[in-house]
Amino acid sequence: MNKTDVVREVLKDRDMAPGLQGAAYAPANIALVKYWGKSNAALNIPMTDSISVSLGSLGAHTTIRVASQNHDLVFLDGSELPAESTFYQRVKNYLNLFRSSQSHSFEVKTTSSVPVAAGLASSASGFAALVKALDQLFAWGLSGRELSILARLGSGSACRSVFEGFVWWKRGQENNGLDSFAERMDVHWPSFRIGLLELSAQKKPIGSTEAMQRTIETSRLYSAWPHQVSTDLPRMIDGLTHRDIETVGQVAEHNALSMHATMLAAWPPVLYWLPGSVEALRRVWEARQDGLCVYATMDAGPNLKLVFEKSEQAKIVALFPNLNIVDPFDLLS
Amino acid sequence: MNKTDVVREVLKDRDMAPGLQGAAYAPANIALVKYWGKSNAALNIPMTDSISVSLGSLGAHTTIRVASQNHDLVFLDGSELPAESTFYQRVKNYLNLFRSSQSHSFEVKTTSSVPVAAGLASSASGFAALVKALDQLFAWGLSGRELSILARLGSGSACRSVFEGFVWWKRGQENNGLDSFAERMDVHWPSFRIGLLELSAQKKPIGSTEAMQRTIETSRLYSAWPHQVSTDLPRMIDGLTHRDIETVGQVAEHNALSMHATMLAAWPPVLYWLPGSVEALRRVWEARQDGLCVYATMDAGPNLKLVFEKSEQAKIVALFPNLNIVDPFDLLS
Repeated sequence: MNKTDVVREVLKDRDMAPGLQGAAYAPANIALVKYWGKSNAALNIPMTDSISVSLGSLGAHTTIRVASQNHDLVFLDGSELPAESTFYQRVKNYLNLFRSSQSHSFEVKTTSSVPVAAGLASSASGFAALVKALDQLFAWGLSGRELSILARLGSGSACRSVFEGFVWWKRGQENNGLDSFAERMDVHWPSFRIGLLELSAQKKPIGSTEAMQRTIETSRLYSAWPHQVSTDLPRMIDGLTHRDIETVGQVAEHNALSMHATMLAAWPPVLYWLPGSVEALRRVWEARQDGLCVYATMDAGPNLKLVFEKSEQAKIVALFPNLNIVDPFDLLS
Repeated sequence: MNKTDVVREVLKDRDMAPGLQGAAYAPANIALVKYWGKSNAALNIPMTDSISVSLGSLGAHTTIRVASQNHDLVFLDGSELPAESTFYQRVKNYLNLFRSSQSHSFEVKTTSSVPVAAGLASSASGFAALVKALDQLFAWGLSGRELSILARLGSGSACRSVFEGFVWWKRGQENNGLDSFAERMDVHWPSFRIGLLELSAQKKPIGSTEAMQRTIETSRLYSAWPHQVSTDLPRMIDGLTHRDIETVGQVAEHNALSMHATMLAAWPPVLYWLPGSVEALRRVWEARQDGLCVYATMDAGPNLKLVFEKSEQAKIVALFPNLNIVDPFDLLS
């Protein structure tokens, strides 16, 4: 099964005649139990489940309409992307999945409220917003589950950005990935905070898809990664259910560092860290030794994301003055 | 079986009456395939084989004689160690294994030619020199194999420092560790170089024995470490046999980073790196991209050790001006 087959299966006999315009918003997300490695690279089916928190008002606003030109137009934060850029190509290939026989072109405009400096992946919120905007444009009325499957085809972690709050992506069992989708967890935790600590907004030396692939192929230690996740997953669910920041923070940090460890053991080694990453990690650990309840997670980049509760916020800001604090439940309360 | 039993077995019916004085030298060593984890902590029996290179004239000179006082005296680089210091206690406990019934005390004087700033473990060369000096003091005439077993009881990696050149420590199969000893490899490679890159001579935040133990107990990824070693070992032996610096360097770097990865995945995480370690690693990788044949290895500390051949030395020194270059075959050619 390829992506086209999956889209056909999800959309079944829905109308493929677009309306005037679709517009949607989707938040960025930070994984607390990471997605690292695909069991099916063509369909973005992951090796393991993962759990994330969506970043509330930090995300992507996307509008889509049928273009009058005979080629797609993609705008990001007001600038038209050149047709030869990687992101244009990814969007175009994704849109190919949704064109009806008359082969219309689309005009996609995305503005991101994620500070560029935060170094967050834009593809997750971008593809989640895009699929929601498509749903509106075509008036399909897809369920969250269906939107999540379609978003996954654009970018794996986009399937989590379809939802607010804490989100659990279940890898599923089917080869076609039709049971690999995210769901919102029944956890309301208004005092939960994520702190974005910017170290570098430089382009990554290696993209996460390539890094995952290299890790799977060359890192002996990766063989233990699925076991790590199967240990972390029930503990994280338990921690979130009880709003227990120590458990959530510990599991998130342990999981993130273990993911980076699998990359470090790849060949050639994959190291997203900068010298400042080590320094910031050490500062987090010192803060913990001084009694602060703060933990770190890291993704395929050098930046840290801190995990803590509102009650610790003042002390943490004193230690990390440039911290960009996110309240994931801001708009939900 | 405990250490006393092992010593009794190795020394059998040898004379336990000391002579006037023993004096010996043993080199420091750097593992190219690391020793990380004990299958028997009491006897320092390792989980896996390991391979090292001895550092020629960088090592420990030790003299030992029976002391006139009724307690041991331990001097390091001319200073007497206080009886409450950790190293004094380790030496005293080790000497306890070799006291005859009349329970004499010893005076041990060690001078190290390893620059303190190099951040190399002193226990490997120290215990290897000590056991050789004991062998001389008692005129036992022990074989290299026997010396290696006894040195291992003082500090695991000391069993490798009994020999010059490239050294292979075979973990053995016996529970008593009587087949866990090192042997010199039949490899003569006068153009092989080790470069010591000092980043910090600060005391480690956590000793290697404790770090190993925590890794085994809490790092999921450690379960794959023995597989890593069993892949690296034959490749390293092949590389050394053919004096193939690319293979030796690649395997050494991959193995070292994988070892650090197992620690990073422990909880609490064990991270010996400083910001400067990341910076130096990146410089090594850049040098390689520029065509230089240079690789890095790291032990339980923040410093890097570079692996290269004499032909590249000038270019490498230009990139790392403070490099302390070691010629392991200097005294052997």
